[in-house]
Amino acid sequence: MPAPIRAVVLLSGGLDSAVTLACARADPDGPRACHALSFDYGQRHRSELRAAARVAEHLGAAEHRVVAIDLRAIGGSALTGELAVPKRRADEPDPSGPARIPVTYVPARNLTFLSIAAGWAEVLGAPEIWLGVNAVDYSGYPDCRPDFIHAFERVLAVGTRAGVEGRALRVRTPLLHWSKARIIREGAARGVDFSLTRSCYDPDEAGRACGACESCVLRARGFDEAGVIDPTPYSADATRPARRGAP
Amino acid sequence: MPAPIRAVVLLSGGLDSAVTLACARADPDGPRACHALSFDYGQRHRSELRAAARVAEHLGAAEHRVVAIDLRAIGGSALTGELAVPKRRADEPDPSGPARIPVTYVPARNLTFLSIAAGWAEVLGAPEIWLGVNAVDYSGYPDCRPDFIHAFERVLAVGTRAGVEGRALRVRTPLLHWSKARIIREGAARGVDFSLTRSCYDPDEAGRACGACESCVLRARGFDEAGVIDPTPYSADATRPARRGAP
Repeated sequence: MPAPIRAVVLLSGGLDSAVTLACARADPDGPRACHALSFDYGQRHRSELRAAARVAEHLGAAEHRVVAIDLRAIGGSALTGELAVPKRRADEPDPSGPARIPVTYVPARNLTFLSIAAGWAEVLGAPEIWLGVNAVDYSGYPDCRPDFIHAFERVLAVGTRAGVEGRALRVRTPLLHWSKARIIREGAARGVDFSLTRSCYDPDEAGRACGACESCVLRARGFDEAGVIDPTPYSADATRPARRGAP
Repeated sequence: MPAPIRAVVLLSGGLDSAVTLACARADPDGPRACHALSFDYGQRHRSELRAAARVAEHLGAAEHRVVAIDLRAIGGSALTGELAVPKRRADEPDPSGPARIPVTYVPARNLTFLSIAAGWAEVLGAPEIWLGVNAVDYSGYPDCRPDFIHAFERVLAVGTRAGVEGRALRVRTPLLHWSKARIIREGAARGVDFSLTRSCYDPDEAGRACGACESCVLRARGFDEAGVIDPTPYSADATRPARRGAP
């Protein structure tokens, strides 16, 4: 039996990256030996890192590493503590308008994370990086779009040892064109325990979701549309996000 | 008088990045307001960071920030402590051969540093990132080549807020096609105090150069060819790199 293909999988502790890891573990061309990578970047929602460790173990990753990087030194996002996380209900429009990039955008975050993942993939001799970006319910982040992924693969082809030596790294993005509801259904089909995942941008001390931030709203809507019960714990004073058609 | 154009300048404390900062400060289109950026990435040669701070002040940078990033968590390079730094004399060929990428290559390092610089440039509203890469005396690193820089600019155009909003970031690389000797002459013409810069991959406790690593060898050869005296201090037991034509 040939050795399994190695893959670096970016794992945030959220729903999308957990489903991405499950896809890599259940790939039709053989389960990948998954080297899960998370970042401690001064994020408000550090319960993500504990969730990532649990998800990595649950889905049989070969290992899980956390790279510390102090993005607070360059500031600029609600997710690293400089601005307030906006709250809105599912039925409210984004006050910044649909064409705006939200304040929770961390400048060049996916680019930075992919770059470090590429470095680790080179060290491991892994030909693939898996990333849970999504261009449907993508919150308006420019680094979640197909054009970005393609341009980044070109950078890897010309700017890494692996690329120069003819072993260009691929960026695998199975969720790219899936709705949030489909992501949840595909994850459920691959045995993802959603109770281990965290999506909230502003959880309480115990890691329970606020129910009001953009990420909570998108998650609740996705579970609603998928017809799946979300086992996420909510904080005591949270208003559970409104469900379409609920009384 | 219009406000000066802001620029993020990657500053390692070495010779090339110091000359790059000097070029940004003396640009024909007006001196840039330079926001110097260094990385504490677990490098062996941490005297680089002290040198970077001195160089930033000497050349009138608007500020100097250091982002901590623990690349040791993913290993893989002599510069982050996993492998021994190779020593050779200027007149010895590289034993790994001219086509090989040396062990001092840090996987995807420039890619990672440029990505974080792009994030800071977005926060600052700076339209330029300046980087001291060089494709002539470039030590065989794949992320020092023009193709890499162009591919990275494409990533910035499609994957950042600035790019999406029509303010694509430029990567300025004035040293790209200069010989080491020309870099030294251009730096001297712009008033760079080379005694503040550090190039050695393996300095002693006091930050003095070893005289034997690849970086020391390239530097000595460059000063020799430029006809400029290098004020770099060498460690007591160092063999100062051989000069061409010296007795």
